[in-house]
Amino acid sequence: MFSEIRKRVKKIGKAPGTPTYTGEQRTKPPVVTVINYSLSDFYETSNTDIETCFAPDVIRKGTTWVNIEGLNDVELIKALTKRYNIHPLTVEDILNVEQRPKVEEFKNYLFITLKVLIKQEHAFTTKQVSFILGNNFLLSFQELDTTLFDNIRIKLRSKTNQTLRKEGPDYLMYRLIDTIVDDYFATLEVLGDEIEEIEENIIANPTSQSARTIYKIKREMLLVRKAIWPMRELLSHLAHAENNRISKFTMIYLRDVYDHTVQAIDSLETFREMLSSMLDVYLSSITNRMNEIMKTLTIITTIFIPITALASIYGMNFHYIPGLDWRFGYIAVLGSMGLIAFCMMLYFKYKKWI
Amino acid sequence: MFSEIRKRVKKIGKAPGTPTYTGEQRTKPPVVTVINYSLSDFYETSNTDIETCFAPDVIRKGTTWVNIEGLNDVELIKALTKRYNIHPLTVEDILNVEQRPKVEEFKNYLFITLKVLIKQEHAFTTKQVSFILGNNFLLSFQELDTTLFDNIRIKLRSKTNQTLRKEGPDYLMYRLIDTIVDDYFATLEVLGDEIEEIEENIIANPTSQSARTIYKIKREMLLVRKAIWPMRELLSHLAHAENNRISKFTMIYLRDVYDHTVQAIDSLETFREMLSSMLDVYLSSITNRMNEIMKTLTIITTIFIPITALASIYGMNFHYIPGLDWRFGYIAVLGSMGLIAFCMMLYFKYKKWI
Amino acid sequence: MFSEIRKRVKKIGKAPGTPTYTGEQRTKPPVVTVINYSLSDFYETSNTDIETCFAPDVIRKGTTWVNIEGLNDVELIKALTKRYNIHPLTVEDILNVEQRPKVEEFKNYLFITLKVLIKQEHAFTTKQVSFILGNNFLLSFQELDTTLFDNIRIKLRSKTNQTLRKEGPDYLMYRLIDTIVDDYFATLEVLGDEIEEIEENIIANPTSQSARTIYKIKREMLLVRKAIWPMRELLSHLAHAENNRISKFTMIYLRDVYDHTVQAIDSLETFREMLSSMLDVYLSSITNRMNEIMKTLTIITTIFIPITALASIYGMNFHYIPGLDWRFGYIAVLGSMGLIAFCMMLYFKYKKWI
Amino acid sequence: MFSEIRKRVKKIGKAPGTPTYTGEQRTKPPVVTVINYSLSDFYETSNTDIETCFAPDVIRKGTTWVNIEGLNDVELIKALTKRYNIHPLTVEDILNVEQRPKVEEFKNYLFITLKVLIKQEHAFTTKQVSFILGNNFLLSFQELDTTLFDNIRIKLRSKTNQTLRKEGPDYLMYRLIDTIVDDYFATLEVLGDEIEEIEENIIANPTSQSARTIYKIKREMLLVRKAIWPMRELLSHLAHAENNRISKFTMIYLRDVYDHTVQAIDSLETFREMLSSMLDVYLSSITNRMNEIMKTLTIITTIFIPITALASIYGMNFHYIPGLDWRFGYIAVLGSMGLIAFCMMLYFKYKKWI
Amino acid sequence: MFSEIRKRVKKIGKAPGTPTYTGEQRTKPPVVTVINYSLSDFYETSNTDIETCFAPDVIRKGTTWVNIEGLNDVELIKALTKRYNIHPLTVEDILNVEQRPKVEEFKNYLFITLKVLIKQEHAFTTKQVSFILGNNFLLSFQELDTTLFDNIRIKLRSKTNQTLRKEGPDYLMYRLIDTIVDDYFATLEVLGDEIEEIEENIIANPTSQSARTIYKIKREMLLVRKAIWPMRELLSHLAHAENNRISKFTMIYLRDVYDHTVQAIDSLETFREMLSSMLDVYLSSITNRMNEIMKTLTIITTIFIPITALASIYGMNFHYIPGLDWRFGYIAVLGSMGLIAFCMMLYFKYKKWI
Repeated sequence: MFSEIRKRVKKIGKAPGTPTYTGEQRTKPPVVTVINYSLSDFYETSNTDIETCFAPDVIRKGTTWVNIEGLNDVELIKALTKRYNIHPLTVEDILNVEQRPKVEEFKNYLFITLKVLIKQEHAFTTKQVSFILGNNFLLSFQELDTTLFDNIRIKLRSKTNQTLRKEGPDYLMYRLIDTIVDDYFATLEVLGDEIEEIEENIIANPTSQSARTIYKIKREMLLVRKAIWPMRELLSHLAHAENNRISKFTMIYLRDVYDHTVQAIDSLETFREMLSSMLDVYLSSITNRMNEIMKTLTIITTIFIPITALASIYGMNFHYIPGLDWRFGYIAVLGSMGLIAFCMMLYFKYKKWI
Repeated sequence: MFSEIRKRVKKIGKAPGTPTYTGEQRTKPPVVTVINYSLSDFYETSNTDIETCFAPDVIRKGTTWVNIEGLNDVELIKALTKRYNIHPLTVEDILNVEQRPKVEEFKNYLFITLKVLIKQEHAFTTKQVSFILGNNFLLSFQELDTTLFDNIRIKLRSKTNQTLRKEGPDYLMYRLIDTIVDDYFATLEVLGDEIEEIEENIIANPTSQSARTIYKIKREMLLVRKAIWPMRELLSHLAHAENNRISKFTMIYLRDVYDHTVQAIDSLETFREMLSSMLDVYLSSITNRMNEIMKTLTIITTIFIPITALASIYGMNFHYIPGLDWRFGYIAVLGSMGLIAFCMMLYFKYKKWI
Repeated sequence: MFSEIRKRVKKIGKAPGTPTYTGEQRTKPPVVTVINYSLSDFYETSNTDIETCFAPDVIRKGTTWVNIEGLNDVELIKALTKRYNIHPLTVEDILNVEQRPKVEEFKNYLFITLKVLIKQEHAFTTKQVSFILGNNFLLSFQELDTTLFDNIRIKLRSKTNQTLRKEGPDYLMYRLIDTIVDDYFATLEVLGDEIEEIEENIIANPTSQSARTIYKIKREMLLVRKAIWPMRELLSHLAHAENNRISKFTMIYLRDVYDHTVQAIDSLETFREMLSSMLDVYLSSITNRMNEIMKTLTIITTIFIPITALASIYGMNFHYIPGLDWRFGYIAVLGSMGLIAFCMMLYFKYKKWI
Repeated sequence: MFSEIRKRVKKIGKAPGTPTYTGEQRTKPPVVTVINYSLSDFYETSNTDIETCFAPDVIRKGTTWVNIEGLNDVELIKALTKRYNIHPLTVEDILNVEQRPKVEEFKNYLFITLKVLIKQEHAFTTKQVSFILGNNFLLSFQELDTTLFDNIRIKLRSKTNQTLRKEGPDYLMYRLIDTIVDDYFATLEVLGDEIEEIEENIIANPTSQSARTIYKIKREMLLVRKAIWPMRELLSHLAHAENNRISKFTMIYLRDVYDHTVQAIDSLETFREMLSSMLDVYLSSITNRMNEIMKTLTIITTIFIPITALASIYGMNFHYIPGLDWRFGYIAVLGSMGLIAFCMMLYFKYKKWI
Repeated sequence: MFSEIRKRVKKIGKAPGTPTYTGEQRTKPPVVTVINYSLSDFYETSNTDIETCFAPDVIRKGTTWVNIEGLNDVELIKALTKRYNIHPLTVEDILNVEQRPKVEEFKNYLFITLKVLIKQEHAFTTKQVSFILGNNFLLSFQELDTTLFDNIRIKLRSKTNQTLRKEGPDYLMYRLIDTIVDDYFATLEVLGDEIEEIEENIIANPTSQSARTIYKIKREMLLVRKAIWPMRELLSHLAHAENNRISKFTMIYLRDVYDHTVQAIDSLETFREMLSSMLDVYLSSITNRMNEIMKTLTIITTIFIPITALASIYGMNFHYIPGLDWRFGYIAVLGSMGLIAFCMMLYFKYKKWI
């Protein structure tokens, strides 16, 4: 949450369209994978050098998918996007990894940027993935090398998945977005488990740490929501807007991903309401606990304080205290004390404190 | 709430349109019921084998209603939907029982999926029901075999209910949806009873469990709301959108169901506000209770502590304590004590604590 | 709130359009009043038997207003509505007294249903009133016989109120709705009085009952809001929608009722905010009260506990306690005690507790 | 807030369009001021008798502004509005001083009603001002005689303010509305001062009255908001709607007043958020104060109670208590007491209570 | 927040369009900088005297950018705006530095006013910047001389930044707005740091000051939000509205700034939710702390009060107290005391208080 703004600040003062990578620095060079496929053919080239990937003998007819893992080599990105005639602002947005998920239409392509949720060291972080969808090509830019797209790549290689090979880059992009949205549900499951755990904890045995745990989960949810929430608008735009870059065939599928996103947001909202209700339960339970503590204190004190007072009176050293030399004085006083205690008990019983 | 995400996770990595049943596994095979009716004729076939149901002599003119109870046989669903030329995504949605209620228009049919609320072992669960409305057929898919549709079946069989037999599959679908929405009110009644009970409890005799009970009801309401809330949009779409699959005649009735849904949502919102107001009353009542406990403690303590102090002073073993040998010393001290107690009482009276 | 759902449940399983009265059973038969008026003529027939009311010699030219008080005779309603060719769903809505206020347009009439607020035994209840507005007739259905419409009837009878007699049934309906909306303000006044009373009570002398009283008013307001809120949409629709059943002349007046409804809703929202602010004041005042109680306890205890401790020390029975036989020992100890008390007092003064 | 509803109730049962003054009764008769101006001429007549004001020699060409101060003479208002052919509902709205600010278009005029905020005896009240804008006239109705419009009158009289004299009644109305909206900022300043004062008070030295003061300001703000909030819609309508009664020239100025209203509403919302944040600070500060009180009590009690217990033990009158006749018994016990106190102190230090 | 209203009040009573500077008075005279540029040429004149700046030999073809730092010389502003034929209301808005950010279209120019956030003496203040965009000129008015625009000026001077020199005044304005919006992120970083600090503080070691610090940050955020929030609407209007003053080329860039603003607002909303969650954590932690204090008090008191009572009983001076002369009486009593303490400990252990 904070890191994002700090990264944003790096860019202040730079001219718009200046490509600046705002993510974490990494030593590993980015990997470019060029996949060229049609219903009949499939070629795949993977290299860290872009010249090799686009050697004259590599580019063929059909759909071209260029995937880049790692954005730390600005020159490479510039070279690639120049080849496809991409607007400088788009290049800037790809490299500025603190972008809000959005879709932008340009004359010759559609630009989409969104977030992948990654669990790193017991905390979620978001990593950016951007897509550029052209007439016969799809460029995808991943901030981090994940295994998310491996599945699609495997399916592309095999000839059996007819649809994927037959349809154009719009369907491929849909499949990649679908994979990312499906992955959100894995994140929601982790959150759901955490919430279920704290729920049990708060119902059965609230500790002084419970409020902090609720806060921790809320904070995580804010991050997740920031990633998922704009997806709704983004996918609604993709699935309903009029543009000739996405086929009717793919649009039906995009509507499906849209539905999933709405479902994910619904779950987040439900989680949120549950957490805030839990906090109420927690607060009432610690107040109840205090009531119980106070009751114990009050009962013990109000029984023994009058007894002590009475005993102290008969412990005074006055020469003339009536009853001190009475044979049954001691018994009488003890009896009075018992009576006081008994009356107090009755009072507490009546008040339903015991 | 949590189960739903977990079921959703089962599907991660699968290609879209892959039919996967995400509900509970059951050993009972699904039952297919094919009903064929017109104003004059009525045929009914029920079997677990789809081939028997669609034997050449079974299909006739008029409206065909195919109802499936149980979704655990993926092959059966695939065979049936193939027969009616249903889009793979729709088949996936039917089998993925954690769908959000929605309506989708396809070229040759209308797809609707919604939720039935079922009380199982003191807790609500939602079961999915989907409809596919074609020109002269209606397919309905139930996750669980309920008795909800029995009533409609009986009415179809009898010749007296002219409207049901005369009108097409759109009116039949309306009747089924109407039955489901009517059933929501039974659920709301259960919730209403629970709320009335906790209301009485909180007004008359709040216990430390009250907050937890409120939380429990809130959690149930979240589930119910998740099922009912999207129905509003769904029915509004059905009742007002322009499409030639639903007749004007039926649309008037759909508007009526829409009104019922809005009424149900209204009641849910009212319940919600009442519960949150009750929590405020509860919190103030436990703070009030603490005040009362503290008052008791304070009154007893402030009366007897000074008396004890005075008595202790005259219990000291100094050789020269003036008054110890005075005849009325003891009486004087006792009188002072009484005076202190009396003044304290006056002070508490003034403060309106007693 | 709860009753409404229970009544709703009565209807489950019945076919749509089945007229079922869901209100309270009453023994008194419904009264039908047929009024027939034009600028020059006025006829009025009142009877419990519909045949008498619609005897051939009764129906004349001009505007006909049929008013029914009491909905407990389903057959009567059915006979009347059949005469005017009313849709079965409308008849069902008239008899189902737990309808949400709404307006529905049909080919040959406009159907409006709304709520009257009635104070019964220290609590509000809502009673349903429905209107069917046709070309030259107005049917009005009242769940309960109220005196609300008497005023209009008197005005109709007298020839002086030209407008009412000159204009058609749309203006008559406006007048009846206007009367109902005006009556809401009487309800708001009762609520306002209750809020003013609890406000004074909370500012001057909050008791442990205050939170419960606030809750009681909130609950009443929920009921009132449920009746008034949908009126806004209803009247906005009536006053702005294009339909030839309501004249331009009447529309201006309907806009006026619309404004009144908005004003009523505004007041309800203001009441709501005031009540929730009052609860905050109340909660802080009971916490403040606890602070005061605790302060008293703390001051008394911290002054006398050290004194008691000191006195107890000199009350020990050791043979060698220095100072016991010192002539001014007693005075010195008493002085020390005074000093301790004085220091404590200074400390509390410094802490601004006294 | 409450008064408004009570005044509203006065009207129940009256026919719509019946002019009834719902404001406070005053003995002072209303003052009618007729101003007639063009770029070259200026005539002003002021009287309590309408006939004098509209004497034949008084009405001339150019723009006529009729201002009425005081609405308590219903006959006067009726006479005036009849002269300008005003709809009875408008007359009713002018006299019903509890109207919600609104704008209404009629065939021959535009009707606007809004609120002036007046500080009376340490509390705000709202007074109604209504405008009727015709082709060449402006009627303004003030519930109370204020000095708000004096400024404009002075400017009209002087020939130097060309714009005011040159433009028609729409510009004059704009100037009057502008004056009223500007006056809202004076009210906001008063509220701002009160908020600043309570803010300082709560940060530096919260008392038990603070919550009540916050409530008082909130209540005032509700009243102010009720007056200002509808102005936004009203002015937006005036400044953007298509009608030929307001010139393009004046519309630019109306947009400016609209901006001011939005700014005023922004400030109110900010105030609201500040007040609710302050309440949180206040509640946490009184809880903190309780913590401090409890800490003092606990520290004193836990140090001296064990000492008293120990001293009491050695004060028992058993014949055989070991150590009583030991020379250093007393010193040893005193030492033990010191040790107990010291350990307790260490524990509190460790707990960071002292 | 308060200052703004006070400044606004200064204007009450003045005629609209009267230019009045409402900001802080400063002795430094405003500096006018006239920059004239085209792809090939660049001229820059800077002076406090407007006549010098607009000397006949200074004005040339291409784009003219007039920047004014300091608004305290009303005459200068009037002279400049007269030269460009600016509407008096616009001049008033430029000088009234408490304007809400807005965009207004006039026939011959576009007027935009927005806020710069400046950290002065540990608190944020907003300073106003206004733009007037004409066909071939841009006027910019800064309330304070900041270094914000220096960067752009340097870039204009150098010939290398082709785009800036080639495009018209709309692109220049975009660059200036972009600089301002980028600067918001620096402010957000400061806020983010403060929130991170208080977050750590509240999780690790909440003090009685924490609530006040949260309040302080909330108050700052209200100011920041007031500046940024209207920017969303403003930029959305600029980037999507149809007008021929902004080229298609620039519009793409404006959409980018719009995205940044939405991102900034998102961050603010996230901050807000975090702060309110933190307050919940804080409140629960001080209640927990009280519980702990009360537990200590209760444990110590309930152990030693019964012991003291028992000891007092055996300290009474009755002549006949059984057991006093028993050899093991003392031991037996001590043992009883130990047993009482032990039982109490067991009870607390069972209650999980220790």
